[in-house]
Amino acid sequence: MTNFQVRTDLALEARESISEAESELRGVRVEEYYKEEEDVRVTKVMIDTKNAAKAMGKPVGIYVTMEAPAMVEPDEDYHREISECLAEELLNLLPGTEKEQSVLVVGLGNREVTADSLGPQAVDNLFITRHIVREYGKAAYNCEKMNLVSALEPGVMARTGMETAEIVKGVVQETSPDVLIVIDALAARSTRRLNRTIQITNTGIQPGSGVGNHRNALTEESLGVPVIAIGIPTVVDAATIVLDALEKFLDEEKELDAVKLIGKQQLNFPELNNMYMTGKDIDAVVKRVSYTVSEGINMALEMRMD
Amino acid sequence: MTNFQVRTDLALEARESISEAESELRGVRVEEYYKEEEDVRVTKVMIDTKNAAKAMGKPVGIYVTMEAPAMVEPDEDYHREISECLAEELLNLLPGTEKEQSVLVVGLGNREVTADSLGPQAVDNLFITRHIVREYGKAAYNCEKMNLVSALEPGVMARTGMETAEIVKGVVQETSPDVLIVIDALAARSTRRLNRTIQITNTGIQPGSGVGNHRNALTEESLGVPVIAIGIPTVVDAATIVLDALEKFLDEEKELDAVKLIGKQQLNFPELNNMYMTGKDIDAVVKRVSYTVSEGINMALEMRMD
Amino acid sequence: MTNFQVRTDLALEARESISEAESELRGVRVEEYYKEEEDVRVTKVMIDTKNAAKAMGKPVGIYVTMEAPAMVEPDEDYHREISECLAEELLNLLPGTEKEQSVLVVGLGNREVTADSLGPQAVDNLFITRHIVREYGKAAYNCEKMNLVSALEPGVMARTGMETAEIVKGVVQETSPDVLIVIDALAARSTRRLNRTIQITNTGIQPGSGVGNHRNALTEESLGVPVIAIGIPTVVDAATIVLDALEKFLDEEKELDAVKLIGKQQLNFPELNNMYMTGKDIDAVVKRVSYTVSEGINMALEMRMD
Amino acid sequence: MTNFQVRTDLALEARESISEAESELRGVRVEEYYKEEEDVRVTKVMIDTKNAAKAMGKPVGIYVTMEAPAMVEPDEDYHREISECLAEELLNLLPGTEKEQSVLVVGLGNREVTADSLGPQAVDNLFITRHIVREYGKAAYNCEKMNLVSALEPGVMARTGMETAEIVKGVVQETSPDVLIVIDALAARSTRRLNRTIQITNTGIQPGSGVGNHRNALTEESLGVPVIAIGIPTVVDAATIVLDALEKFLDEEKELDAVKLIGKQQLNFPELNNMYMTGKDIDAVVKRVSYTVSEGINMALEMRMD
Repeated sequence: MTNFQVRTDLALEARESISEAESELRGVRVEEYYKEEEDVRVTKVMIDTKNAAKAMGKPVGIYVTMEAPAMVEPDEDYHREISECLAEELLNLLPGTEKEQSVLVVGLGNREVTADSLGPQAVDNLFITRHIVREYGKAAYNCEKMNLVSALEPGVMARTGMETAEIVKGVVQETSPDVLIVIDALAARSTRRLNRTIQITNTGIQPGSGVGNHRNALTEESLGVPVIAIGIPTVVDAATIVLDALEKFLDEEKELDAVKLIGKQQLNFPELNNMYMTGKDIDAVVKRVSYTVSEGINMALEMRMD
Repeated sequence: MTNFQVRTDLALEARESISEAESELRGVRVEEYYKEEEDVRVTKVMIDTKNAAKAMGKPVGIYVTMEAPAMVEPDEDYHREISECLAEELLNLLPGTEKEQSVLVVGLGNREVTADSLGPQAVDNLFITRHIVREYGKAAYNCEKMNLVSALEPGVMARTGMETAEIVKGVVQETSPDVLIVIDALAARSTRRLNRTIQITNTGIQPGSGVGNHRNALTEESLGVPVIAIGIPTVVDAATIVLDALEKFLDEEKELDAVKLIGKQQLNFPELNNMYMTGKDIDAVVKRVSYTVSEGINMALEMRMD
Repeated sequence: MTNFQVRTDLALEARESISEAESELRGVRVEEYYKEEEDVRVTKVMIDTKNAAKAMGKPVGIYVTMEAPAMVEPDEDYHREISECLAEELLNLLPGTEKEQSVLVVGLGNREVTADSLGPQAVDNLFITRHIVREYGKAAYNCEKMNLVSALEPGVMARTGMETAEIVKGVVQETSPDVLIVIDALAARSTRRLNRTIQITNTGIQPGSGVGNHRNALTEESLGVPVIAIGIPTVVDAATIVLDALEKFLDEEKELDAVKLIGKQQLNFPELNNMYMTGKDIDAVVKRVSYTVSEGINMALEMRMD
Repeated sequence: MTNFQVRTDLALEARESISEAESELRGVRVEEYYKEEEDVRVTKVMIDTKNAAKAMGKPVGIYVTMEAPAMVEPDEDYHREISECLAEELLNLLPGTEKEQSVLVVGLGNREVTADSLGPQAVDNLFITRHIVREYGKAAYNCEKMNLVSALEPGVMARTGMETAEIVKGVVQETSPDVLIVIDALAARSTRRLNRTIQITNTGIQPGSGVGNHRNALTEESLGVPVIAIGIPTVVDAATIVLDALEKFLDEEKELDAVKLIGKQQLNFPELNNMYMTGKDIDAVVKRVSYTVSEGINMALEMRMD
């Protein structure tokens, strides 16, 4: 399998793809619980050591995965119950919940490519307050505490000529937020996870992740402020699909030893580079889940004030 | 191979997938020529008999395929030379070129799904004249002959609750055009053909074709006026990709007999239903090729007047 | 004042602009009530006779005006309480509430012009059921009664070359709905009414009304089915603004007799033709009120089923 | 007239509104020429001294105004001849034309408000090269010299919570361009100038200018690099329209002394704050002129390389 790049942005899938022996390695802790009323399964993967990070192929940090099958269904309330779960998990990862903060929300991705438009669409529905509080004070909202929320849609390199990280870094330095929340569409390995999984992590965005392959890091290390990333897988890598089909095929073909067979040759599908697979109803799905995400963020930032 | 549905909207690919013996069957004529200056290869497949139609899985009619590799590259003039080729081929298929006509151009597909937005984007750039000529006469354009060009973007069933064919039929009956030109994004079998092939046919749109699976026919039989369809493949069916990969894999694995192997089992990938594969730069590509198509139509309708 | 065309699509304003004596004319009944909790003032103008219609400059029928000042303010629930009022009033005007019906909702206007995009944006959020019920039956929704809801965005003549009425008429004839609901952005006379007034009428759309000057009628007479029109004023005619300013100016200038002064000359502002005035935050406003309207329609059509 | 704020972003109109005596003041030079073939009238207003700047209400610098009546008409080539004029004038204002440079183009305004979307739409059609040259070198374009072109659409404060100037400043500091080109929709005083005038200035963007009232400066002083601003008036201030109508009215009413009359009272139209006036075909106009602007910039940056 080593000849074949399996691409996933989900820590949950990264963990599944390593063997039992490895997953019990020291430095990886896993917590799971199921919220029955909301039908949401939450898995927390905590990678505590550099060794564990290496084995998992993911940096040290906390990865919360919410599996919410209902998210693929239409709902007139945009799955408010899932937004509430997201708000709670997000709140746990946000630093310094004691006092009000300045929060910059960054919507990564390309608004013009439906499957990659989760970030831009999510920032459209945020409750933006920074400019109001700075001009009129908290009095404008009749409350004692009020976060300063701002939002940025940096666009993609093909249209800006700049790395996303350059734009975000410049804006962070100029506006000095206390924390970043970054939203991005992700690639999953399995079609089963498409559009029904939310991943929240305090490790930020790593080079090469996301649908659009944003290459530079958006992390606390690179930006100087904590970075929480929220992602939903909206695509599957074309090459991954092919691999899965091959495995299934060879599995059914009992006479063959799949792994050995694949190992013998260099599978190579250059024509699948820069291709991705998505569902035909991706427009309705992204419109809906982007709203679930933005409402979750709005709730979390409001909760902090209570 | 019979267990596995190979989906292609291109007559060129349908012809390739049948054996040599079959392709020489009576009732199918093929003409090919190469326009060197424009680097466009034109293949005309003429299906003349019902038997041939059955063998090809495509209705009786003329299918012109323009292969234009340059179309995937950026070009500041939106590939004007390809638009000119398209205009010429289109003109050959348009009926009654002697006198001015009323032409309704229909942009099929879903504007909100990038890979399916070729039709809607193409109608945005048409030169619409019907309302002007009807109100002010041809004098408004200082010319003796003037086509009446109108355009419709019917939308997709998930958003309208109506079949595309119902909407088009109603508008045709009410506005009585002489001919329809229908634009749609297609599915190809091979990634090699994506975004660099234009198919023009006088058979209209068949049930089940197109990216969005518009199920009802838009044909002269169903609408009562000639229907020319212009399509560009922007996606590959996910199941097709898997099949191609399997073939390649088994091909390389010399010891196995691919066809026999596949024949032995029912390959079945339900999770790939309603999934499609497209390129990461599909936004830029569709924006560009939709302009190439609309310019081709504008030119053809203008030429008719000279 | 006769030299100067005062343009308003609101029956409420038409009534205000005629003298007291006239407003008490036979054939016009007015009912008013105030919903305190929702802060919505409802005025029903019922024009019962042809004479009254002539005096008012509006056809015989019922005009319900909801004045809801809160509508211009942001609200995280998109003013659900106003949607509920709208649903009730709409339900009163819908014919034959006993049984389920086929309802076609038409979003008039131009999606590309923000102030004129109310109709297209509103149909984006409707609960569309016609295609599902026709394919899978009411069982798909687990209910005994289910309206068949469909939606159409016909676009504007400059882009289609066709009158809106031609497109709508064709689709009505082909799909045979029981009733039409037509949504359009309106022009008000007063800036006070902008974006905070909803007008619902059973007279359909009259020639020359709406922001985009849709010239042909969409009425029961022209289409053969009842037509309910829902409109919100999003613009003020430029010429109207000028007139109002002149009146105010001359009013303050006590020495002059305004009416006499204006009467003496032919006020003529050709450069203001085809111009309109709107607010700088019109994007946020239309996004919000279009949602209030679509939710109101969704609720009304759901209520009918209970 | 002092009681009434006349708003214009055009230096040409500012000059017209001061008296003859003032316009001959020292420190203001004016050059005019007419390009017959293109039907473009070019006026250069050079404000050389602080005194002159104060009298004109515009900073010291060069203001080039191109009046191109054809720009309001449809044109299948997007008025290439006007783009060429723009390229020439732009080239004169760009600093250091000897060597290749890094140029950041900023599209100001709100994509969601048609009349304010000139900047965002113009950056959509730029030829972006910075990321390619940085990754592959100039060899990627087969040329010896190549500018590094990047583009930014900062969005509006209501959606970002940040001043446009904060975002631009951060990105400038991070990416260090040699020069900025800023594109914005402007407000004119006269409807005659709408959509047919291009203003190019080396003074950047001043606080309070533009359709959307971007309040912070984008100037060489504030950003540390030269800033060229390109603007096209797409709206007229509502209050300006009213003033013009009053003047016209009082002018025709010979018995009155307009200026004296207006001077006597405080004209005050609070309901017109934050309102603007624009044409009904603004969508088609902005789509077209934004392309004329982006092509002009593309040409200018290409010329520099010859």
